[in-house]
This record gives sequence, C-alpha cells and structure tokens, in this order.
Amino acid sequence: MAMTMTQKILAAHAGLPQVTAGQLITVPTDMVLGNDITTPVAIREFRRCGREHVFDREKIAIVLDHFTPNKDIKAAEQCKVSREFAREMGIVNFFDVGQMGIEHALLPEKGLVKAGDIVIGADSHTCTYGALNAFSTGVGSTDMGCAMALGRTWLKVPSAIKVELTGALRPHVSGKDLILHLIGEIGVDGALYQSLEFVGDGVASLSMDDRFAICNMAIEAGAKNGIFPADEKTKAYLAAHARESGTFFAPDPDAEYTRTVHIDLDKLDFTVAFPHLPGNAHVVREISEKIAIQQCIIGSCTNGRLEDIKAAAEILRGRKVAKGVRAIVIPATQKIYLEAIEKGYVQALVKAGCAVSTPTCGPCLGGHMGILASGEAAISTTNRNFVGRMGHVDSKVYLASPAVAAASAVKGYIASPEDL
Amino acid sequence: MAMTMTQKILAAHAGLPQVTAGQLITVPTDMVLGNDITTPVAIREFRRCGREHVFDREKIAIVLDHFTPNKDIKAAEQCKVSREFAREMGIVNFFDVGQMGIEHALLPEKGLVKAGDIVIGADSHTCTYGALNAFSTGVGSTDMGCAMALGRTWLKVPSAIKVELTGALRPHVSGKDLILHLIGEIGVDGALYQSLEFVGDGVASLSMDDRFAICNMAIEAGAKNGIFPADEKTKAYLAAHARESGTFFAPDPDAEYTRTVHIDLDKLDFTVAFPHLPGNAHVVREISEKIAIQQCIIGSCTNGRLEDIKAAAEILRGRKVAKGVRAIVIPATQKIYLEAIEKGYVQALVKAGCAVSTPTCGPCLGGHMGILASGEAAISTTNRNFVGRMGHVDSKVYLASPAVAAASAVKGYIASPEDL
Repeated sequence: MAMTMTQKILAAHAGLPQVTAGQLITVPTDMVLGNDITTPVAIREFRRCGREHVFDREKIAIVLDHFTPNKDIKAAEQCKVSREFAREMGIVNFFDVGQMGIEHALLPEKGLVKAGDIVIGADSHTCTYGALNAFSTGVGSTDMGCAMALGRTWLKVPSAIKVELTGALRPHVSGKDLILHLIGEIGVDGALYQSLEFVGDGVASLSMDDRFAICNMAIEAGAKNGIFPADEKTKAYLAAHARESGTFFAPDPDAEYTRTVHIDLDKLDFTVAFPHLPGNAHVVREISEKIAIQQCIIGSCTNGRLEDIKAAAEILRGRKVAKGVRAIVIPATQKIYLEAIEKGYVQALVKAGCAVSTPTCGPCLGGHMGILASGEAAISTTNRNFVGRMGHVDSKVYLASPAVAAASAVKGYIASPEDL
Repeated sequence: MAMTMTQKILAAHAGLPQVTAGQLITVPTDMVLGNDITTPVAIREFRRCGREHVFDREKIAIVLDHFTPNKDIKAAEQCKVSREFAREMGIVNFFDVGQMGIEHALLPEKGLVKAGDIVIGADSHTCTYGALNAFSTGVGSTDMGCAMALGRTWLKVPSAIKVELTGALRPHVSGKDLILHLIGEIGVDGALYQSLEFVGDGVASLSMDDRFAICNMAIEAGAKNGIFPADEKTKAYLAAHARESGTFFAPDPDAEYTRTVHIDLDKLDFTVAFPHLPGNAHVVREISEKIAIQQCIIGSCTNGRLEDIKAAAEILRGRKVAKGVRAIVIPATQKIYLEAIEKGYVQALVKAGCAVSTPTCGPCLGGHMGILASGEAAISTTNRNFVGRMGHVDSKVYLASPAVAAASAVKGYIASPEDL
C-alpha cells in the first residue's frame, strides 16, 4: 500500500515494509531534544528507567533557551539541573548561554537534523524540522526521558492532509502568512494527529526559512508533524550545515490523504491571527478598524531566522518605531545575531528604536523579555496567541509575519508593508 | 568660611553665601530622576502633594531600565503606571524600551546633566553625575515625588573626605579598581553622609568613563555624593553632549575636609571585592586559591559604558569564554550598543561566546537576565555584592572591573589580564 512521506520515514525506522495510519509502532530516535523547562522533568523520568547512561551522548540535545539568560532563581536552578546532567552524562550537544539559540533554529543550524531523521523533543514546536524532510514531533517530558534512556520512542502512525501549493509568494508575503492562512482554513484542530504534507510546484518558491516557519506551526493546527519534500534548497541547506544529508523521502504517487487543501501562493495576502487562537486568521487589508499595539515582538522559533530579521530591518531602516510602541527583536541564535550585525540589520533596527535581545524564547510564552500588562496588545511573530500567553490575562496577542510586525511597529497599529 | 566643591554647589543653589556641614537647606532641583521601580511609588507621593502638574516637564527624567524589557506581569504593570504618568504630565525625558538605557549612563549621554547641577534620583547610584562636577545623590521615592511637585528638595549639607590622586593608572587598571580599593580602605560606611571629593594631579589621567564608575560607587562607601573637579575632559564631554556646560565649581583652597586619603594611581592594582560587601577588597595577584566562577556580568550603571565594553572586547577577542561560564555583556545604552557594534566589540564578544543583551539593569539587582542558582559564583562589574544580590541566597558575587571580569571569564576563575 502506498505511503505518505511521513509514513515512509516511520516505516524505514521501524524496519517495516509498510505502516498504516493508526498503527502503533516503536522507532529509534535520531535526536532527542529538551530545553531548560522540560529537561529537568525528563531527567527525573530518565532516572526512573534505571539506566546509568543515556543511549547515545551524541543523539541528545539540551538547549537552555526558554528562561535564559536566567530570568529568576527558579530558572537558574532548572538550568543548573540540566547543566549538571549534561556534564554527568557527557552529552555532546549541550548548549548553554552564550553558545546557544532557540532550540528549533539552533538544531538545523548546527547540523543536528538530517533528512529522513526521526526527532522527538519535549517542546511542542519540535515539528519545525519537517522543513528538512525529517519526521519531528513534540512529546512530553516522560517520553523524552524514556528516549534518553532507550533511544526509542512509540508513535501512532498518522494519517495525512496534503497541502498542494501552486504559484509563488508576492514580495514581503512569507511562509508565516501561508501557515496562518492554512490554520485559518482548517482550524486549530483541523489536522489533529495528522501529518501536514506540503507538496506541489509552489514548494520551490519557498525559502528554507519559510519552510521552517510553516512546519513550526503545524502543531497549531493540531498536526503531529509538518513536512516538506527535499529539493535543491533542502539539499543545499543540509550540505552547508550537516555532516551528512540523510535519506530523502517523497510521498508515493498514490499515497492516501484524508484531505487535500490547495493554496495558490500568488493570491496569498498578509495575514494576522487575532486573539486568542492561531486559527483566527484575518487578511490585513480587510481589517476595517485601526487596531493599536503597544508592543511588537520579532523573533522566536517561528520567525527569528536571518530572513525574518532581514525583512524587519528592511522595513524599519530609515523609519522609526511609533511612539507608544516597544519593539523587541530577538535573533534566534548567536550565529543569526552575528550575521544580522554583519549585514547591518541590527544597526538599522536599533536606529529605528528597537531593543535587540540576545537569543531567548522569552516573551513568546510569557517568560520574560517583553511581558504585557493588562489591556495591552502586541503584534508578534511568535506562534501562539492564547489568553494570557504573553503576560496579563487581559492582554492580547496578534500573530503575524516579521514584515507585518515591522510595518505595524512603524504605524502603531496593525498594518502591512503596503500601508507604509 | 571656605567650602568644598559640594558645599559651593549647594550654597549657590540655596541662594546663600555660605553653607556649613550639618546645615539643613532646601534647594531647587535641576533634574529629578526615577526608574520603573521607584517612579510608581513617587507618583503616589506626588498625587498626595495636591498639584495638578509637575514643576517642570523638562526637569524630570523617567527611565524604564530595571526590569525591562518587562520581565514579568508586575514589571509590565509598573512600567505602565510610569508611562501613563509621563504621558499625562507631558514629561519630555521619558525613556521607554528601545530608546533607552540604564539611567545613570543615559542622562549624561543625553546631555541632561551639566556641571554645577543638583540632581536627585530615586535610585541609590544617582551619585554618578559627580563625574560632571555636579551634585547628585540618591533619594527615596517620597523625596522624588515631592520634588516632582515642588522642584525643590531638602538636604543636610555634607562634610567631605578629600581623595587626593597622584600618578596615572597602569594599562587595563581602571576607575573601578580605584573605587574598590578606596572602599576597601575606608569601609562601606567610611564616608557616611559625606562627600567624596576627588582631587589632585592624578585626576587628569582618568577618563570620563573612569570618573563615572568612581562616582557611581561613592554610595558604596556610604557617601552622600562623589564629585570630581571639571577639567578639559569634563568640558569636552559636556560640549559633546549637553546644550550648555553649566557652572564649574572647584573647592576653596582652604576647604575643610574631615580626612584626606592619598591614592597613588601608579601603584593601583587589579582589585576585586569579595562577597558580601563592596569594601571586602582584595588585589587579584594576592588571591592564593583559584576561585571558580559560573557567571560573568559586564555592564550596569557602573561599568556598561563604551570603554568598559571595549576593555572586555579587547581581552575576549580571539579568545573563548571558559567552559562552564556564562558571560553576559550588557551595553548600558542603545547608543553605546550601536557604537560597540560599529567598533566591532559586540562581534568579538559574541564570537568569544558572550551573550550580549539589550540595555537593562537586569542581573545587577537580581532582576533578570542572568540570575544565580544556589552555590554559584559570579564575577561582575556591577556595584553591590550583598547576600543574594544576584539571585539565590547561597550565591556569591565578586565585584571587579570589565578587564578583570573578562580575563576571569576566559580562565574560568578570578584572574587579571596579566594572567592571560
């Protein structure tokens, strides 16, 4: 029977000729990921497995990115637990303050994910690596702990939705607009426990950073994973970053999908998800009132990559952040931060009145580095706009692309680059 | 009767030909300062004064620098209170995230302090501006609130200690070493409610950034203020930053001092204040054991200026932060941050493995952006190393200059540039 991309990766790992949707399997893990919040819990579960050593000290990544640089004593103690465990176990891919970045930007950049891999991470946005034609998904800390011990995890084989892309994105429109549009179409549970498989002629026009942003938010439609086929861009990315490129998986021509969604990239418009769900999508040009914002966040595992910083810098260069708006830009990794300096993006952003932070997840989950007071609204390139996500229960988050966020920072209300 | 520098500034403001130590006076304020922590309290006191308007909307500065970008909901609410008050009152010198910096670096940079001024601020390190031959001192939020209403404050005229400087600093030795040495000599209450007046041939060799760091920590010896005479460097600084230079005050030749302390700058050595008091000074070369550190903080109102960032970058360029050390560098203002990028300092620091943060007081007072866990030790260019100052009650802070902090970050234990 024909299989989807995801199913073919799972079958290959399970050592089975065939898997079908709904089947329970166990598979070896190529990379097991945790962060400063989830790793301490996973360590407790690991200890309960009774193993003295982790299954492979090169196939675990621990990234201290959420509440770092330590935002308070509790955060400091959590990092300490992870740091001491990494030292005890000799974990190679341990990333502390100063060497690090946001996990889902960092792992591809460090070449720790290759095509055809299975990656699980105790963070819901682990699905990001589907951009590299890998299967990756978020798990709980218990599953992370067990996988650190065993090098294996269990999965229910997902069915899949085909997202057929045609055409090419217009200037300033990005992968973020695409994924917000898609979630708006299918809903925040529209792909529950399914794969979102992106295929079609339109894929070629998407940059790798677009694809990372798209797969990153697959979970916001409830998907188990998001995945792209590998093309020349994928191969070039892997060649530049990873020691080996891995194995590429395309869907069988007659693979079975529960549904097909067509998206014409030419027609995609600047899209914003209103509070309080990522699926509450609106096209900017159709917003009838001026929605004032007090904060603009550009960064996160969704949109803190170099293209994102570039998009923001190009809009903010020579302009000023509107009075009454705090604009905070957070490059996702130290490498991105350095490149953004070398290309003059950081300088343009600071001159425009942005605060540029060291890499951290910070404000995205209401951690630190830009928390909202009651009654405040933010436009943000992050991935979730649930009630109270970025601070006070009476604050609001509007999700958007870096270009839309930057344009909104200039205007002081939600706007697109076309409004400037 | 002859007067000290400080007394002459106070007499001129009080409209009196003469003031003497111990005398209670009221004086007009040239600048009244508050931050995100102290301003909300001051606003409540201001309201109790029954005035509708502040005394002068150009002579109040509110800087949101301590827990910003907002570290949590409480911080966000505090900033909101200050922001709304600034808008209501039309306060000209209101500095929000993105336009700001640490108050005591920002005010001189923005030209908001001139020689001969009286500046009070609801922050203990307001004494920094003595470097500009101004009288400046920290007050409580109540005094700030009253001064916002009245444009006046009360003071007890301080007696003074003369600090006579001779010679010139050796390479890499800085104003921070001088002030730590001095506090070590006279103790943390050695100048209680007195002025520390720095005079002598050695003054000329000190940069403005050295003088800011020295005056900044006058309070750590209990001093009411620290002050330098104006020389060519002062005048050049004021000409470059302020609309007018102000009035210069030198001590009367026969001014009365309670004590004279001589410091030969040639003989000053790299100095570190051990936990848990700024007066617990030790010369680095005399430390017999290796004191391991887990964190290095370079920044703050004491040492986050361009020379400080430069000193750190010159030591860290081409080197690496030691394994197990988190090095966090925080330029004190957006302008310093930009200049540090333009000069390549930030790039060198990031390549060495430092996290470079947007301007904030953050870790200095255990706020955020680098908090210590139990059992951890930090070397820090900040100004206080009290028990639990930077995090857990069982953590330790060693105070040092940027050069010593950077050298220690490279070695992983407390060291001086001579140890590299």
